[in-house]
Amino acid sequence: MIIKQPKPSALSEQVENMIEWLASYGKDERNGVSRLLYDPAWIAAQRAIEAKMNDLGLQVHYDDVGNLFGRAAGRDPEALVVLTGSHVDTVIGGGKYDGAYGIIAALIAVEHLLTQYGQPLKPIEVVSLCEEEGSRFPMTYWGSGNITGTKSREAIRNLKDASGMLFEQAMYNVGFGLGQHPQPQRSDLECFIELHIEQGQVLEREQKSIGVVSHIVGQRRYDITVHGESNHAGTTPMKWRHDAMFTAAELIRILMHRANTNEDGLVATVGRLDAKPNVGNVIAREVTFSLDVRHSDTETIRTFCEECFNEFESIAAQHGTRITYRKWMDEPPVAMDSAMNAATESILKREGISYQMMTSGAGHDSQVFGTHCPTALLFVPSRGGISHSPAEFTDTEDLQRGVRLLIDLLHQLAY
Amino acid sequence: MIIKQPKPSALSEQVENMIEWLASYGKDERNGVSRLLYDPAWIAAQRAIEAKMNDLGLQVHYDDVGNLFGRAAGRDPEALVVLTGSHVDTVIGGGKYDGAYGIIAALIAVEHLLTQYGQPLKPIEVVSLCEEEGSRFPMTYWGSGNITGTKSREAIRNLKDASGMLFEQAMYNVGFGLGQHPQPQRSDLECFIELHIEQGQVLEREQKSIGVVSHIVGQRRYDITVHGESNHAGTTPMKWRHDAMFTAAELIRILMHRANTNEDGLVATVGRLDAKPNVGNVIAREVTFSLDVRHSDTETIRTFCEECFNEFESIAAQHGTRITYRKWMDEPPVAMDSAMNAATESILKREGISYQMMTSGAGHDSQVFGTHCPTALLFVPSRGGISHSPAEFTDTEDLQRGVRLLIDLLHQLAY
Repeated sequence: MIIKQPKPSALSEQVENMIEWLASYGKDERNGVSRLLYDPAWIAAQRAIEAKMNDLGLQVHYDDVGNLFGRAAGRDPEALVVLTGSHVDTVIGGGKYDGAYGIIAALIAVEHLLTQYGQPLKPIEVVSLCEEEGSRFPMTYWGSGNITGTKSREAIRNLKDASGMLFEQAMYNVGFGLGQHPQPQRSDLECFIELHIEQGQVLEREQKSIGVVSHIVGQRRYDITVHGESNHAGTTPMKWRHDAMFTAAELIRILMHRANTNEDGLVATVGRLDAKPNVGNVIAREVTFSLDVRHSDTETIRTFCEECFNEFESIAAQHGTRITYRKWMDEPPVAMDSAMNAATESILKREGISYQMMTSGAGHDSQVFGTHCPTALLFVPSRGGISHSPAEFTDTEDLQRGVRLLIDLLHQLAY
Repeated sequence: MIIKQPKPSALSEQVENMIEWLASYGKDERNGVSRLLYDPAWIAAQRAIEAKMNDLGLQVHYDDVGNLFGRAAGRDPEALVVLTGSHVDTVIGGGKYDGAYGIIAALIAVEHLLTQYGQPLKPIEVVSLCEEEGSRFPMTYWGSGNITGTKSREAIRNLKDASGMLFEQAMYNVGFGLGQHPQPQRSDLECFIELHIEQGQVLEREQKSIGVVSHIVGQRRYDITVHGESNHAGTTPMKWRHDAMFTAAELIRILMHRANTNEDGLVATVGRLDAKPNVGNVIAREVTFSLDVRHSDTETIRTFCEECFNEFESIAAQHGTRITYRKWMDEPPVAMDSAMNAATESILKREGISYQMMTSGAGHDSQVFGTHCPTALLFVPSRGGISHSPAEFTDTEDLQRGVRLLIDLLHQLAY
């Protein structure tokens, strides 16, 4: 069915205005946006979205961790909820689109559908998820995790932000966590749809307008520590050294070479390295580096790590150093819903919009929803793949194309 | 000539006591010693050494930067000064022997010689050099540099310590730099002798009692920066990356492999590495690492750097990264005096003391004196090669053997 869409020019103007409107909450002097969980900019943004939801005639509520919902009730009293939205928090000095776009698109889409088609058959809810980035506290997916029951209060006990403020105290200070709002866990969701910027360069390089995510990659993260022996850079002949930095350099090279020769889309990253004592004229006694490995198949990740770590041991033996591994994340890949993706593809084909089936190498709330209810994650292009930066940008043409797709999909699912 | 030496047991006790005595100034709770230039522990130590010099009947004076001298006048009014000593400052949390041993040994030797042989022919001066380590301000060899005229007030203008205190202000606060003491530069030195702990493992591994330094190695130091491109660890395929960390790992490996296969005693160290943004799930956009290269031949150092840097460029080209080099130190090797070393060797042979001719891979005040007047640098073993640590240790037997050698050598040079 061909549905009635907003006029492209009006839609472009609306989406542009709303991107600027939401970015105004937490904008910094370098034109970045910083909205950290429960901070004043975050509160202001949620209040502004709440007001917008009220303007649209939605039934508005917060849950007890600060997720904000605007509900268009359905005609069928038995129907489960079609949920759409994204996260309202940002990284420190982030862009205007990450998270925000998914909330704005949902608001515009629901407004249009209610205006054009009136009350839906099934309830549609727009959600502004309280937290995804883990930028303030060492905890990610706090919003979607609470909704799906995979995160609870136990998980945040004793967590503190950089200023030493307890997570729970920060929550209490802004009126959440006190039982004054409904408990966050939901068992009435039919599906979740998240529209998001790609934060990568695949769509731009492939010149596609929409990315349809087949699954979100699994990832393992490690801290790998090389234990060597500190010694004077001048008085210690090379042959007597147990240099943690040299060992680390060899290990990083092994990881990168193996990842580069893997044909199957695996990515491995060593982004952080901390040496001790980290002084130019002292041989490093200890080097800890991060390892982040992602792929859509758990077994591929497991094999990659196993083969690298085997090779590591022979390097360490040669150097007289020792390696310890701390695996602190091991998330399986999450498949998005194939029926929802099929529906999306048929819309895209019908409308003649170019698209790409792809994996998401980045984590999203959709991976949390994806094990709880049928979920679709849809991307629009990111210029240069840049994200988590004031330079984050998506062309208005792409933004409005994403909203039109969401309108179409919501209509199919809820009307 | 066989000279009269102190009784070994009495000498051992005296040197042990004096090591503890000087270490008591600036001792911290972890049994380390921290005496930073012009700080209260430094002042207390200089005052204590001054009192000791007065007890020995020496003519005592400070120069205007805080070097402390105790002079035994010579019978020959024309004779130049035989100078011996070392530096009184320490690193933060250093050991009891580094620097201190050379001062203590000089005090004991002069005391013994004056008692046994009376006034020398040539003046002997014991020096407690104010600064060598560069631990408080980013400036090394402040003491010997001023005596030899290679350092001046211009060099410290605007230098600050970690608390923001200006170097000059710190000097004024303790009464130096104001012209109240003689200017430091000296043109009346016949020679300089420095007895020091090895701070390496050569003597211990080779089972030798004394190290006679033929020259102090030259060294180059660089900060090498790899410029890449920051990108998301999940969404950027390996083939599109310009990963500064991967490039840095390859470069460090090249440096270490080349240094390890150099048969000629060259040492190269990468002790410090700082990545930006240094976050596990972000590809590093910039990595800066230190390079410290030392050898007794300038040309060997030059060739090593040139060959490595040539190889670097092809790696950077492969990775689509860029490398910049900041050379901030390029010190030539300094030869110690061959006549003084010959005199030392003949004493060691006569006494049946095992020794090793060697290079010093570490810098010492002797390298500053070495271009100004004939200089000898003599080592005693360091257990495990450990230095700049509370675990720094030299056996009393070795300490007293060094003092006996110094007595013998001073007698030969000044009587």
